[in-house]
Amino acid sequence: MQLGLLGYGVVGGGVHQWCLGRGDVAVKRVLVRSDKPEIAAISTRDIQDILGDDAIDTVVEVMGGIHPAYEYVKAALEAGKNVVTANKALIAAYYRELTALAAEKGVALRCTAAVGGGIPWLVNLERVARLDEIESLGGIMNGTSNYIMDAMHRSDVDFAAVLQKAQALGYAEADPSADIDGDDIRRKLTISANIAFGAVLEEEAIPTFGIRYVTAKDIANFRAHGFVCKLLAYAGTAENGVCAYIEPTLVDAHDLEAAVPANFNLITYEAAQLGRQSFYGQGAGRFPTAANVMQDCLDIQNGQRRFYTERAVPTTLDGTNEAHPYYVRYEGADPWLDSLTVERWDGAVITAAANTYDMIAWAKSHPGTFIAGIR
Amino acid sequence: MQLGLLGYGVVGGGVHQWCLGRGDVAVKRVLVRSDKPEIAAISTRDIQDILGDDAIDTVVEVMGGIHPAYEYVKAALEAGKNVVTANKALIAAYYRELTALAAEKGVALRCTAAVGGGIPWLVNLERVARLDEIESLGGIMNGTSNYIMDAMHRSDVDFAAVLQKAQALGYAEADPSADIDGDDIRRKLTISANIAFGAVLEEEAIPTFGIRYVTAKDIANFRAHGFVCKLLAYAGTAENGVCAYIEPTLVDAHDLEAAVPANFNLITYEAAQLGRQSFYGQGAGRFPTAANVMQDCLDIQNGQRRFYTERAVPTTLDGTNEAHPYYVRYEGADPWLDSLTVERWDGAVITAAANTYDMIAWAKSHPGTFIAGIR
Repeated sequence: MQLGLLGYGVVGGGVHQWCLGRGDVAVKRVLVRSDKPEIAAISTRDIQDILGDDAIDTVVEVMGGIHPAYEYVKAALEAGKNVVTANKALIAAYYRELTALAAEKGVALRCTAAVGGGIPWLVNLERVARLDEIESLGGIMNGTSNYIMDAMHRSDVDFAAVLQKAQALGYAEADPSADIDGDDIRRKLTISANIAFGAVLEEEAIPTFGIRYVTAKDIANFRAHGFVCKLLAYAGTAENGVCAYIEPTLVDAHDLEAAVPANFNLITYEAAQLGRQSFYGQGAGRFPTAANVMQDCLDIQNGQRRFYTERAVPTTLDGTNEAHPYYVRYEGADPWLDSLTVERWDGAVITAAANTYDMIAWAKSHPGTFIAGIR
Repeated sequence: MQLGLLGYGVVGGGVHQWCLGRGDVAVKRVLVRSDKPEIAAISTRDIQDILGDDAIDTVVEVMGGIHPAYEYVKAALEAGKNVVTANKALIAAYYRELTALAAEKGVALRCTAAVGGGIPWLVNLERVARLDEIESLGGIMNGTSNYIMDAMHRSDVDFAAVLQKAQALGYAEADPSADIDGDDIRRKLTISANIAFGAVLEEEAIPTFGIRYVTAKDIANFRAHGFVCKLLAYAGTAENGVCAYIEPTLVDAHDLEAAVPANFNLITYEAAQLGRQSFYGQGAGRFPTAANVMQDCLDIQNGQRRFYTERAVPTTLDGTNEAHPYYVRYEGADPWLDSLTVERWDGAVITAAANTYDMIAWAKSHPGTFIAGIR
């Protein structure tokens, strides 16, 4: 199996490393944007050197971003090459179109590394969906935000200090907003839900509340009441479509999610007959993410031509029936919040069951507020 | 795909249920030992009705026990049929021989349901082993013993009472020894280690200490020191072979294993580059176990002909370098134990790092003693 690698960043370099010493998969050519002396012999700046090379059967797209990744992937499929990608943004936006094109051309399109880094999440999600009915899925799908929440629970430090440490360790980026505001999770949730439910969800419409405003005082409050706060994703079947959202969530200190340390992920589905199954591991990082890219290649080599799902029906978000109690720390007075309040904690309130979509919308319109659903 | 089902117990009935309503997999014939009126039209007491039926491409063995399961599976492979089995005992003892026969005949042999019930453990273990090097594996591999330990941690009850309740709920069998003494785990560990390390381990030689002698007072001791006790399996590469053992283990109350409730399993591997990945779910039960049988069938239908491993080299157990501290509750005086003691808890001692194989052998020769490794 001869690979054409698009991109030679963290993941691309990892794929190259995995291939060295293997007899069955080799990187034949690498598309780079700037010179990489260590791979000068196989690198090119011209995509045609890959698309036009008949010896290359599979294109591995690890450049990220939508353009020109989209154009290149499309051209690779058109040229009759299999495509493996780790590109969340591309797959969340174009899964349906690219799958149809791959089917038409009789080639494979795999993207296991797009969700969960090195965790074999999408392959197992696909496996269960072919047998049982998935009712819901979600969990801890972002390592950076879990690292921050875990560190804040372990010591009495404030958000800004922990974020700074995460940045120093390379766990968080200079602009951390995609990780701490939940946008990265939303993308992974969209891909997972689309596969599980045969849906096409509008990614940007999924209500999402991040951890930007959590304080050491909030954490002390949670700890005092036996809770641990985690940024959790959820998607489940609903009466008129799919209910999906991302919000900080208080879980019992003895729950499995509460025990997930540092930058690990724990991703779960609930299926009708099979019940709950969860997958734990590194959700990011060079070798883990590149490992899932390699597994996709090996699956293709072994004849795997199935798509994660064949069904992709535009589906509405339906949060009508999703309600649970909330922790709300809000500096001010609000009649709606007052009407919901059933208990007061130190500087915050606990509400009766409130509609999730309403609560997230309200909290987003009151910057500085922190909310957490109570499971 | 037409199945011949050997056995119609809990798992066999589950497989039949899963098949109803599917167009791609059907049960054509069922071998039964006694009349089952509900499947009279497709049942037989003569194995030749299945072996001699050319329309049956795959034999599903869910009768349990080694004889005549071994003879029937062998005959099915000889007849050119694929075999799917959930039979731990059979696979632990005959994996090597049956795989060689299947390879010779060009048919598939799958046994994912033999370890972890409905958890997709063996398929993922096989996947990671084709890319990365597995260094160790193990975890919570038996639901009954986990149910008992979990219940004892939740309330101040003694072993006998919890076992009785587990039996009443159907979580434990009338003769619970295979579950509480670790023999069931040992079998699953043998199969997993053989696949992960390309080994053939001598199942009965793996040091195994169960939970038969744990008391409410032991649990109170663990709780007082921030520990949770779980019956854990371990197998890892060692200097001269594989180090494998099963023993009660004290894990930090915040560890992932500590959060595994009721009769759930959590099975883990550590791979050189990929790090730790864990799989959580129901490790037994009709639909979960039958689901893994079905997944094996679907994999075969999709052309999967790989074995979990092609390598099966007789390998020695090497516990020479495995040592860690122990909790030991022993009613008596023992010079060896005294020489190891570094701390005293209420009615028990904590030892310095002691060799695991020595400690388990010592504890087994002193009935009534309870030991737990400290991780």
